[in-house]
Amino acid sequence: MRARFAVLVVALFVALGWGIRLTHARQAAPGKPNDASEAIKAVLSTQQAAWNRGDIPTFLEGYWNSPDLTFSGSNGIVRGYGGVLERYQKAYPDKDSMGELEFSGLEIRMLGPDSALVLGHWHLIHKNGDAGGVFTLIFRRLPAGWRIIHDHTSAQKLTP
Amino acid sequence: MRARFAVLVVALFVALGWGIRLTHARQAAPGKPNDASEAIKAVLSTQQAAWNRGDIPTFLEGYWNSPDLTFSGSNGIVRGYGGVLERYQKAYPDKDSMGELEFSGLEIRMLGPDSALVLGHWHLIHKNGDAGGVFTLIFRRLPAGWRIIHDHTSAQKLTP
Repeated sequence: MRARFAVLVVALFVALGWGIRLTHARQAAPGKPNDASEAIKAVLSTQQAAWNRGDIPTFLEGYWNSPDLTFSGSNGIVRGYGGVLERYQKAYPDKDSMGELEFSGLEIRMLGPDSALVLGHWHLIHKNGDAGGVFTLIFRRLPAGWRIIHDHTSAQKLTP
Repeated sequence: MRARFAVLVVALFVALGWGIRLTHARQAAPGKPNDASEAIKAVLSTQQAAWNRGDIPTFLEGYWNSPDLTFSGSNGIVRGYGGVLERYQKAYPDKDSMGELEFSGLEIRMLGPDSALVLGHWHLIHKNGDAGGVFTLIFRRLPAGWRIIHDHTSAQKLTP
């Protein structure tokens, strides 16, 4: 009887331990902020390089290719990958109109295992005058990698 | 021996089941988007009512009371609960300067068990002329309830 009890206790601990390890394994994902940060920085770096060679389609690849993509700003809310692409192509019809883009001061905060909040500054050196401001990006880890599912970009007043 | 084996198998299933239930209980939170949505809408509704009676301290209670709170907009990034409070008190020194605020078109997307993305429109009826635009809010479920940890608010061009 005591032997059976001992087996039972050991079995309980083993099985419970297994259950707890499963729980931890599932929660390990958000514990990898560095991997996520590096992947997110790479997406933004690719976007910046694409912009500066006048390549809007590659710039757009940083965004979620979905009708649910949203882009908020001074034009309200633009919806869908197609809508955002159209907005960029209309505003920047050629390389000359795009200027030189730089992102800086990135701040990345994990919001869950597969989502992150990214704050940053943008600066555009442009023949019609420089512009700049701040952006808020929501990234999600999708099968294709980390992609922007929502962008809120606004211009900053040059005089406070 | 067969009886002991049966006890062992039952014990394994019970303990494993317990472990799995623990896992599910932890993951049940993101499965309650409606509760989260209602709680988030209540925070924004309380903010709107506070604004419209000239009560900035209660309006501020919708925000995370932390030095890590961030507020992006045409002034760049304002940091900390104290910084955001100061910004509001400076821009709106009395009830008369605050006008009548309305939030509309709320869109709430869960980003994880304890975080949500909220898009919406703001409209301010003001003696100096109406204003409006869009906002992006990141809410987190904190011990005190759902609170805004990041706000990006921008004005909309009235003529497209």
